[in-house]
Amino acid sequence: MLLHEDRLFPVEERALKVARALYAQIKNLPIISPHGHTQAAWFAQNLPFPDPATLFVQPDHYVFRMLYSQGVSMDDLGIGKATIDDPRKVWRIFASHYYLFRGTPSRIWLDYAFQELFGLDERLSEKTADHYYDTIDAKLRTPEFLPRALFERFNLEVLTTTDAPTDSLEAIKSVRNSGWKGRIVPAFRPDSVVDPDFPGFAANISKLGEQTGEDTSTWSGYLLALRKSRARFKELGCTSTDHGHPTAQTADLSTSDASALFSNVFSGNGDAAQRELFRAQMLTEMAKMSLEDGLVMQIHPGSLRNHNRLVLEKYGRDMGADIPGQTDYVHALKPLLDRLGNEKDLTIILFMLDESTISRELAPLAGHYPCLRLGPPWWFHDSPEGMMRFRQLATETAGFYNTVGFNDDTRAFLSIPARHDVARRIDCAYLANLVAQHRLDEDEAFEVAHELTYGLVKKAYRL
Amino acid sequence: MLLHEDRLFPVEERALKVARALYAQIKNLPIISPHGHTQAAWFAQNLPFPDPATLFVQPDHYVFRMLYSQGVSMDDLGIGKATIDDPRKVWRIFASHYYLFRGTPSRIWLDYAFQELFGLDERLSEKTADHYYDTIDAKLRTPEFLPRALFERFNLEVLTTTDAPTDSLEAIKSVRNSGWKGRIVPAFRPDSVVDPDFPGFAANISKLGEQTGEDTSTWSGYLLALRKSRARFKELGCTSTDHGHPTAQTADLSTSDASALFSNVFSGNGDAAQRELFRAQMLTEMAKMSLEDGLVMQIHPGSLRNHNRLVLEKYGRDMGADIPGQTDYVHALKPLLDRLGNEKDLTIILFMLDESTISRELAPLAGHYPCLRLGPPWWFHDSPEGMMRFRQLATETAGFYNTVGFNDDTRAFLSIPARHDVARRIDCAYLANLVAQHRLDEDEAFEVAHELTYGLVKKAYRL
Amino acid sequence: MLLHEDRLFPVEERALKVARALYAQIKNLPIISPHGHTQAAWFAQNLPFPDPATLFVQPDHYVFRMLYSQGVSMDDLGIGKATIDDPRKVWRIFASHYYLFRGTPSRIWLDYAFQELFGLDERLSEKTADHYYDTIDAKLRTPEFLPRALFERFNLEVLTTTDAPTDSLEAIKSVRNSGWKGRIVPAFRPDSVVDPDFPGFAANISKLGEQTGEDTSTWSGYLLALRKSRARFKELGCTSTDHGHPTAQTADLSTSDASALFSNVFSGNGDAAQRELFRAQMLTEMAKMSLEDGLVMQIHPGSLRNHNRLVLEKYGRDMGADIPGQTDYVHALKPLLDRLGNEKDLTIILFMLDESTISRELAPLAGHYPCLRLGPPWWFHDSPEGMMRFRQLATETAGFYNTVGFNDDTRAFLSIPARHDVARRIDCAYLANLVAQHRLDEDEAFEVAHELTYGLVKKAYRL
Repeated sequence: MLLHEDRLFPVEERALKVARALYAQIKNLPIISPHGHTQAAWFAQNLPFPDPATLFVQPDHYVFRMLYSQGVSMDDLGIGKATIDDPRKVWRIFASHYYLFRGTPSRIWLDYAFQELFGLDERLSEKTADHYYDTIDAKLRTPEFLPRALFERFNLEVLTTTDAPTDSLEAIKSVRNSGWKGRIVPAFRPDSVVDPDFPGFAANISKLGEQTGEDTSTWSGYLLALRKSRARFKELGCTSTDHGHPTAQTADLSTSDASALFSNVFSGNGDAAQRELFRAQMLTEMAKMSLEDGLVMQIHPGSLRNHNRLVLEKYGRDMGADIPGQTDYVHALKPLLDRLGNEKDLTIILFMLDESTISRELAPLAGHYPCLRLGPPWWFHDSPEGMMRFRQLATETAGFYNTVGFNDDTRAFLSIPARHDVARRIDCAYLANLVAQHRLDEDEAFEVAHELTYGLVKKAYRL
Repeated sequence: MLLHEDRLFPVEERALKVARALYAQIKNLPIISPHGHTQAAWFAQNLPFPDPATLFVQPDHYVFRMLYSQGVSMDDLGIGKATIDDPRKVWRIFASHYYLFRGTPSRIWLDYAFQELFGLDERLSEKTADHYYDTIDAKLRTPEFLPRALFERFNLEVLTTTDAPTDSLEAIKSVRNSGWKGRIVPAFRPDSVVDPDFPGFAANISKLGEQTGEDTSTWSGYLLALRKSRARFKELGCTSTDHGHPTAQTADLSTSDASALFSNVFSGNGDAAQRELFRAQMLTEMAKMSLEDGLVMQIHPGSLRNHNRLVLEKYGRDMGADIPGQTDYVHALKPLLDRLGNEKDLTIILFMLDESTISRELAPLAGHYPCLRLGPPWWFHDSPEGMMRFRQLATETAGFYNTVGFNDDTRAFLSIPARHDVARRIDCAYLANLVAQHRLDEDEAFEVAHELTYGLVKKAYRL
Repeated sequence: MLLHEDRLFPVEERALKVARALYAQIKNLPIISPHGHTQAAWFAQNLPFPDPATLFVQPDHYVFRMLYSQGVSMDDLGIGKATIDDPRKVWRIFASHYYLFRGTPSRIWLDYAFQELFGLDERLSEKTADHYYDTIDAKLRTPEFLPRALFERFNLEVLTTTDAPTDSLEAIKSVRNSGWKGRIVPAFRPDSVVDPDFPGFAANISKLGEQTGEDTSTWSGYLLALRKSRARFKELGCTSTDHGHPTAQTADLSTSDASALFSNVFSGNGDAAQRELFRAQMLTEMAKMSLEDGLVMQIHPGSLRNHNRLVLEKYGRDMGADIPGQTDYVHALKPLLDRLGNEKDLTIILFMLDESTISRELAPLAGHYPCLRLGPPWWFHDSPEGMMRFRQLATETAGFYNTVGFNDDTRAFLSIPARHDVARRIDCAYLANLVAQHRLDEDEAFEVAHELTYGLVKKAYRL
């Protein structure tokens, strides 16, 4: 067996028993996935996933970044290719390097999929590579492994994708019109039209203008176009926006200053400070619109994206080379909070890659401002130790009720149940330790476990 | 029962037994409270506390910041009002939101007071709100719950308040002259006359001049007035000063530069950099005076105070909206340490809100400089996890003997025994783990437990 | 007994058993010491160590910094003196303050040496001071305690020293020519000729020119001299370089810019920014040379060296007053990584003193770039808690295979086996917890334990 039923629970017997009991109550709750990067087209088309390598290796930068760090060539893994020429060869490379994932969450997620979905129970290695490949490949051709069937098997209540304002959302519409009951909703991710450093920034804004019929060469037309675009998303079930900025900087400029700044960056004349200021102002603009239209706002700051120059040039964006840096929230968010921080009807979910901010800035902010909530550990920290540290660092100041449940945030569809399972187990482990140390009563722990798994995420994301 | 006798101890049996044994030896030691924000007037007047809401909700920003973060209005809680109109209504709001405190230290402190002082043993909730209110309210009218009686019941050996140089200290004097044996001493907190950003800075300095009969419009007169003011505090039992600066920046200017800087900030002409430089210089001046008069110096840096603009404007300072930020000590303290760092007769106690500094800067500094000691975890970190992290991050480099015991730092008088009890339990838990891992012998752990509870605080604060 | 056989292992029985089993397999593996500060001359001359104080107190800044922090005078400890006048007196001071080391790694290392090497089993204290002194002093005069005998008894497979480019390396040569089989190799530490802030920078460069016969007053001659110097080290078994810079800043200037910068700093005209830029450029130059000659590159950034002005003036460098500060890697390393980051044949080992960078920057960097590996916890963090935190913070993102085993990094020869023993125990404890939580299978844990102790260090350092 690849998986032990007590995995990730506390080792000590008394706490272990509590963890088991808590987990038994919540393990079968539906999955709410309010933030991720799967493709709605999979469910619109409902075609079989092509092969094991294309499913497990190619889209998962957690996987190929580790292989690359140890000298495996990205070309040999088919990264950046539309289709993999020899997927079995890629799979064998992956299998023979599977030991590299010891101690990592990828190992736990993969083993979960291998055992729970494909019935494999011997460890993946060079020796078992072909057996794995053949088993997975055969199952992928069966109706039970079509995207919609898996969606249902995973007990997904909602699945949220991430989409640019200029996206047609055809796949989302197609799912809605198909008669299939799976609930797939978009999230409004406007980086391409609010971040002057995004490739094609001005062209993206012009395209947004065409789509919405607004003159996006003016500040007021641009804002109106964004409002219309948000409304279009909302009509398709969208309840949230997402903002992936290099910092958490916000600003609250006068209309005339903001308008002049827009003209400057739209025409490509803004320097680095002005481009940063524009992003900062746009967070506040987005928050103002959220207060109007009710979309929940997510801020994902602190990543230096596409850090590896050669990988960016050769393979493009989002290839596992995003590296976090020091992040400030306390000063950066003040302009936005001075304006909107006390609004009870606004929800802003803050994410972090700099764990030193959890107890220092984020929990104190979320434990005070009515509009703030803390997102779950993200990217490098959605791991057993990372999630445990998050609870240990956040709970004493922000409590449980200023957090919002789990995000799988994944491009790897098959990892969704595994990732939620890890999160549920770690939350139960954390609660079990509190109970075993007599810091929380057991009846309360049951209530909190349910909230962390299901209640808080639905409430926070208005799903 | 609200409290388990083994709460906060290690779960594993062998370590648990050691923790119990250590705790049994120190749990009844007198409480030394060398730093806090209770009111000497309570003990001077010895009047009953008015009602449960005024006692537990209104003064405790740990409590109302959490309620506020979840949408409860501060007006509905009576925050900022001299007297609460309907304290039972406030209490009911608090009770019905008591679940928000799950996993927080406030929950532990409150349950301790409810059970140990008021004999309550059913959990506070909407359902038990009135029973709580009536029980507490009735007891508060009995002689056993008058401030002096509680002081004695709490086994307080010393209680330190925090006072501005311009404070009359009448309440302290009144206690001393009353014949009552309770030892209440002031701490000298000169922020109002050394921080140019403090409201009324120049007026405060002029008032200091009147009080001391010195010309505080000159640098030399100002310093002389501060010396006299410190002497006045010292005569009333004061052994320490306290400095709540936004950063830990220090400076060591020439007399002429310092004098010119003083003129500039006193006249209100200093820019932000000059105001910061003045605070920096004043830390060094205070350290020089401490070397002369023996007052122990406490530095509490790193908090962006009154972060919420609206709350500051409507409710005033210290309303739970202080948010920590990144703090540098290694560069900031160098000017002061270059001048005075090797003085054995000087004691400077450093506090932190940025936990990343504990192992990186503070333990290395305190583990080297003779004048430095580490204060206990402060504000958001005086919690079970926060205190445990502090020991884990500080001890290996600074040892136990460069730390100074516990500060309750509270405005909530009734939480004092609860807070010290949590600190004692966590120290015993930490020591028990060391013993169980054979990193410390049990006889040594007993000695250290006594030092952490009683010996080191008396020595460090010269009490 | 001073040492328990289960020290540092998990307390819980199930994990404890796994830890014991893992440790039993690796405890007797040879010691590879790829980075340290022992003196090759000890082994060249093979003379007895003079006395207990000169052996245990004088060279160990972990020891005397703690004593100094608690008011013991450095003069009384013989610090900074060529020979200690009254070593027994120094020893007695040390013994009577031994309780200060409770909870520190020094205590564990010292107790190990006392018991395992000198057969002492009663705790060091004022009372046992003379017994300790006499016992140790007597043994030091026996052949079994000569440096070479201890080297063999410690089962050292390789011992690496740290040497300046201008060092004659006579002691290393003498060992090689002596016929004795002990393998002692130098590491190339060019701070004195690449850091313009190093005392005697220009003179050191001129001396390098004389040694190598190159005109080091020109940029090209200077680089050539460094290449020749590296080759000289390599001939004597050197496999690595080491760089102790205040920051991790790198640069990638054009040849003409670099040449002009060199002229400027060599002539003593560079300002602080230029001196920093020169260090930054030299890291990239060293990395380019490493790609050519195969020397593994170590970067030790983030320490503000010789922080205590008075101690520096009176006692010199490296007297325990190095204090870490905030360190940035993600921006600082980008110029070097943009140029060389994807080179599989280059190995750069990154060290950290700012633990907040481990999960935020270092593990993400090392888990992606083929040239990067993570060095073990260093200076203040090579302790039980520090090493455990390192594994918890690094493994989930970088895995085990992007780490490089343990460095003892010590000036205290007798602490080498103790330090490696602590590292082995903590790695086994970490692995045992993974096994007990079913995050790793036991057969894999055995494999990993061997790699962490022996395999990865030999591979990373090419030893």
